[in-house]
Amino acid sequence: MHKTKIKILNRPKLRRPILIEGLPGIGNIGRVCAGYIISRLKAKKFAELYSPHFLPLVILDKNAVSHLLTIDFYYVKGKDRDFIIMTGDSQSVSPQGHYEICGATLDLAKEFGVKDIITIGGFATGKEPKSPNIIAAVNSENAKKKYMKKGINFNKKHDVGTIIGASGILLGLASSRKIDAICLMGETMGFPFLITDPKVAKAVLEVITKITGLKIDLTGLEKTVKEMENIIKKSSEIHRKMLQKIKYAEKPEDIKYIG
Amino acid sequence: MHKTKIKILNRPKLRRPILIEGLPGIGNIGRVCAGYIISRLKAKKFAELYSPHFLPLVILDKNAVSHLLTIDFYYVKGKDRDFIIMTGDSQSVSPQGHYEICGATLDLAKEFGVKDIITIGGFATGKEPKSPNIIAAVNSENAKKKYMKKGINFNKKHDVGTIIGASGILLGLASSRKIDAICLMGETMGFPFLITDPKVAKAVLEVITKITGLKIDLTGLEKTVKEMENIIKKSSEIHRKMLQKIKYAEKPEDIKYIG
Amino acid sequence: MHKTKIKILNRPKLRRPILIEGLPGIGNIGRVCAGYIISRLKAKKFAELYSPHFLPLVILDKNAVSHLLTIDFYYVKGKDRDFIIMTGDSQSVSPQGHYEICGATLDLAKEFGVKDIITIGGFATGKEPKSPNIIAAVNSENAKKKYMKKGINFNKKHDVGTIIGASGILLGLASSRKIDAICLMGETMGFPFLITDPKVAKAVLEVITKITGLKIDLTGLEKTVKEMENIIKKSSEIHRKMLQKIKYAEKPEDIKYIG
Amino acid sequence: MHKTKIKILNRPKLRRPILIEGLPGIGNIGRVCAGYIISRLKAKKFAELYSPHFLPLVILDKNAVSHLLTIDFYYVKGKDRDFIIMTGDSQSVSPQGHYEICGATLDLAKEFGVKDIITIGGFATGKEPKSPNIIAAVNSENAKKKYMKKGINFNKKHDVGTIIGASGILLGLASSRKIDAICLMGETMGFPFLITDPKVAKAVLEVITKITGLKIDLTGLEKTVKEMENIIKKSSEIHRKMLQKIKYAEKPEDIKYIG
Repeated sequence: MHKTKIKILNRPKLRRPILIEGLPGIGNIGRVCAGYIISRLKAKKFAELYSPHFLPLVILDKNAVSHLLTIDFYYVKGKDRDFIIMTGDSQSVSPQGHYEICGATLDLAKEFGVKDIITIGGFATGKEPKSPNIIAAVNSENAKKKYMKKGINFNKKHDVGTIIGASGILLGLASSRKIDAICLMGETMGFPFLITDPKVAKAVLEVITKITGLKIDLTGLEKTVKEMENIIKKSSEIHRKMLQKIKYAEKPEDIKYIG
Repeated sequence: MHKTKIKILNRPKLRRPILIEGLPGIGNIGRVCAGYIISRLKAKKFAELYSPHFLPLVILDKNAVSHLLTIDFYYVKGKDRDFIIMTGDSQSVSPQGHYEICGATLDLAKEFGVKDIITIGGFATGKEPKSPNIIAAVNSENAKKKYMKKGINFNKKHDVGTIIGASGILLGLASSRKIDAICLMGETMGFPFLITDPKVAKAVLEVITKITGLKIDLTGLEKTVKEMENIIKKSSEIHRKMLQKIKYAEKPEDIKYIG
Repeated sequence: MHKTKIKILNRPKLRRPILIEGLPGIGNIGRVCAGYIISRLKAKKFAELYSPHFLPLVILDKNAVSHLLTIDFYYVKGKDRDFIIMTGDSQSVSPQGHYEICGATLDLAKEFGVKDIITIGGFATGKEPKSPNIIAAVNSENAKKKYMKKGINFNKKHDVGTIIGASGILLGLASSRKIDAICLMGETMGFPFLITDPKVAKAVLEVITKITGLKIDLTGLEKTVKEMENIIKKSSEIHRKMLQKIKYAEKPEDIKYIG
Repeated sequence: MHKTKIKILNRPKLRRPILIEGLPGIGNIGRVCAGYIISRLKAKKFAELYSPHFLPLVILDKNAVSHLLTIDFYYVKGKDRDFIIMTGDSQSVSPQGHYEICGATLDLAKEFGVKDIITIGGFATGKEPKSPNIIAAVNSENAKKKYMKKGINFNKKHDVGTIIGASGILLGLASSRKIDAICLMGETMGFPFLITDPKVAKAVLEVITKITGLKIDLTGLEKTVKEMENIIKKSSEIHRKMLQKIKYAEKPEDIKYIG
């Protein structure tokens, strides 16, 4: 396997789908949000992405069955529009890999007629936030107008200067393909490195509900997060290494945003 | 040479062959097992794999003849089914290379009709095990059932969370090609880094005998291991560097499994 | 996205164009010069270069709109000949990327009939120069004769032994495509790492005026540089990391020229 | 430029040519030998190799003219057979690059009908050798017989276990293409890192004279080496970085052979 490739398992017909990306990152915000949507709305997997830019290992589950690192694509039917949920075990461990993986993802998005993209990440502030705070960024003035109408406040003060990894590169590459995209970043303490922050995840899901009309019952969130944490812990060592590979920072205080 | 390639030396007709992989790794378990099968059953080499993902050097033998690092494929005829033994000097030194090399191996496997894969590795526990202990992992529920019937116990407690390198990636990629695969990991102390552990190798070979029906006389094992060690020592410096390149671990105690 | 690619936005007809390259580097000389020409002469963007060899991140502007790292190509009409100005956020972070990006740039240059190339960089001396000093290098004896006639002095004593990055590789690759090229390096202190040196930029622009006939009013330069600095500061952290990736030096005193 | 490529400047007709490789390495043995043959026998350049696996920089000569790093191919006519001399500024700085560059070289070799390859390197012993000592390695038993007949002694005791870089990989890849090859390694102190060792170079050239019949007047060698040293010093910083990139060793005492 020389290049990233996506294996399509089946071809659902989707109406103007919105792609929601939630991969591992700081605070696990993206991954937890994507995981909760999938489990709560019983989303169905229809495609798998394999890449030589993941760590060269397989994970063992408790049944002694091994699994390649993958990024998986699920779909769920909405009222007027449908949804593709993108989540997985890992992000690229090489700089080039992010571009390759996000490029392949956008090829899939195009094939299934995706019109909008929402990426989810965590933004490490180094201190416990008093109340969950979501920072939004977009990939075009058009996207900004669209989401301002839906109540997103883009005037908040914050220190986010760059968005590293898939949450950022998807925005950037989508722009050149004329797909509107928004990144929702939940402020989180950021250490211990891989602690999951369910409050922030809940706040992000509330925003997603508001801007997409996707109905998600959030009452079970904290319980589900606890269950997910066991799985996440299993692979947390992998994520730690992955994050170290992708952070490009010299001092710990430089690591502000990865998602 | 831009990509991994396999040179096929001759094309034996093989009946539903089982591929057994044993490459350098912790405790040299895989390499010793594969080497012993080849020498004891007089397996014949039929293919060689070259890769730009090996270290850029040649090894000199005692006759001043140099050899590129390769992974070699041998075959041996069994009673009902035949065997392909895969062994060699090195594993990939780049993360991407593992995917490329295992992908090329599975292309070969498909060409020769391989139906099952057995990979062999060592699992470092940091202490001398009282009696040889083999941990098994598979790449599908189907494989698990198959090997449970043959007496493999998958319920042992252990700390193996991931399988790094060819032993793992072969399982992962085989799964997406619908080939059942099992990884047999021998518990070993794991230091000095490249000490060969013949007792564990013997225990792994006994399991292989049991699950494949391949008849291997193990009485000469310890003597053969001693002879192999001289060759292995010659290239141990190479392996040390290779392992350092593939371990992706920050602290020595992180390195638990490479094979 | 597996490879560097250039997206052409429109196809101006250009008369024997001269390509002027000014990318981020020590003292920001190249970037400031290119930026000033673009803003002062209202150059129009006609092409964008994307590359997996840039850092895998997007930059947020003050409006919360994100931008992929790109290298952009602008054109401006001259009296007898036209100009292409090449500038951008970043250089390659991998050694191979420089060759790929410069190769793609020369493909574009060929398509638009470029006959001459001027690259701009900074040369760090470690001390404040008394008066701005420009060092010139060319890619052929023919180019040298041409620029000597225009008053360039190639006999100055200096310590420049190599030119690292796009300013150098463009010269090298242009040579094999029979395009004359000159690199203008402005001597600058070189620390703090990314301080902008407007005096040196002004001196480089005066040389460019002299050798190309391009008329640039330099009276507004210092004001414009101040405005640009705000933008540059925004991405200076990125440049710092980029420079660390491309410097290939072990000791700080080894970093003399990057541009 | 995404891959290594060779530009052929002209196509001399060569009779069963012998390829002699001498690239930068420890003691500069290979480079000095190749350079001396080229200058003394007035060999003519007929091909240039470019690679993204070289450092991304150009070298300035004393005339302010820049040069891409290249590997160059020269030819010289012999009595019965002709010769191709391969030398250049650099070796690959990435592990994969060595395989790519040597693969491209062997494609060229095949095109011009090369029947034998001689590679030259230095072997660092850490102490001043009493008298110049040349260690030989081959890539086949056939090559060994051939060179034993010509007086090469393969029975010397030495510590060379591997040959890193082009001198080694050329042997290895030539073997799979059925081209006989020999590597001549001159024992040298090995520090300072890039000191040139003319005595050892002379001894290697004497062996080359003996095994090829190529007549080289060695009386001018020491004078020529002095002249070459000025050029070599100019690029020695580059070589130092290149060697650091290709050594794959953790401790200085591990670096024994690079050529």
